[in-house]
Amino acid sequence: MSKNGLLIVISGPAGSGKGTVVKLLREMLPDLGFSVSATTRSPRPGEEDGVQYYFMTRDDFEEALAHGEILEHTVYCGNYYGTLRSEADRVLSAGHDLILEIETDGAMQVKKQFPDALTIMLLPPDGKTLEARLRGRGTETDDVIKTRLARAREELGLAERYDYVVVNENDGAEKCAALIREILSAEHHRSPRMRDTTDSFFNE
Amino acid sequence: MSKNGLLIVISGPAGSGKGTVVKLLREMLPDLGFSVSATTRSPRPGEEDGVQYYFMTRDDFEEALAHGEILEHTVYCGNYYGTLRSEADRVLSAGHDLILEIETDGAMQVKKQFPDALTIMLLPPDGKTLEARLRGRGTETDDVIKTRLARAREELGLAERYDYVVVNENDGAEKCAALIREILSAEHHRSPRMRDTTDSFFNE
Repeated sequence: MSKNGLLIVISGPAGSGKGTVVKLLREMLPDLGFSVSATTRSPRPGEEDGVQYYFMTRDDFEEALAHGEILEHTVYCGNYYGTLRSEADRVLSAGHDLILEIETDGAMQVKKQFPDALTIMLLPPDGKTLEARLRGRGTETDDVIKTRLARAREELGLAERYDYVVVNENDGAEKCAALIREILSAEHHRSPRMRDTTDSFFNE
Repeated sequence: MSKNGLLIVISGPAGSGKGTVVKLLREMLPDLGFSVSATTRSPRPGEEDGVQYYFMTRDDFEEALAHGEILEHTVYCGNYYGTLRSEADRVLSAGHDLILEIETDGAMQVKKQFPDALTIMLLPPDGKTLEARLRGRGTETDDVIKTRLARAREELGLAERYDYVVVNENDGAEKCAALIREILSAEHHRSPRMRDTTDSFFNE
């Protein structure tokens, strides 16, 4: 396969069900690539560099950031986590599509550095359903739920900067994953990605 | 349904099998709209204005052309045939997608006047297959085949101005129609077309 894979970014508010949808997608698309993230946290016993994570020092991570070698990153419990551009390039140039399931901030970082990335925002059908899903978990306090709803409101404001918006109805994860698969299938047939076919059409 | 339908233009060289593919698509998508073409040829016995065609005088057709009221047109046996913008608008604003199966020249006319139109070029797998298909018909002279191949070469040069390129393998019409259906499904989820959902997300 000579064609590069697609870099696909999937985001969505807490309660959009993106974890389930991405898991289904991975089952549907066995050819999907997988990128190992980089982190500055210490390896746990049994973890190997380049397998669970690329383990980096804080200095190295920040230098890589400064040089645009990190497509997106986030900070969690005082440690950096991110996707190395070299790692994404490795997967894509082998012809595999790559899905990054990341927050809206990270998604915008990726789009800036990798304009060819395909961005998909996953949404629940509406705000009321979102709230019901968050409350239905039964694990979050009222304050946390309020914060998440406020955050969702901000994320909605970014929807138009995504390429696609997909609604995850209640019990709709399968349908949603199938639709995303259709989007990927369509995107592979965009004319710039079909140049191999059109350029060699009349060649022996 | 409050959303406008999509205007879809499908073109492809003679021998690409676009007639068969579009027929299959129409079977798969019973909700597709249908636009009545306009023509300057005289009605035949039993033909009614607005049913088989909108019958127009040459003066009226040329005036409509000059005013940008005709999305695409062609001349056949000395008569104009074309698609009225008002007719396309009528179908699209009723929420139905509309497929126009037209030549590359017409496709470029439509894209200029209707930038939101979705353009799909259908191709055989390669030049050799195209030639084999044209010869296989057994009805065309060598000269006609040569002209068609030369024309196909020109059309290939326009492929990158189309949004999508779809290859119709031998015996692949079903697969090809299914892929175009996926493209339409994906396109309906482009973020600008999902604004109804995102804008009303937090409204009662």
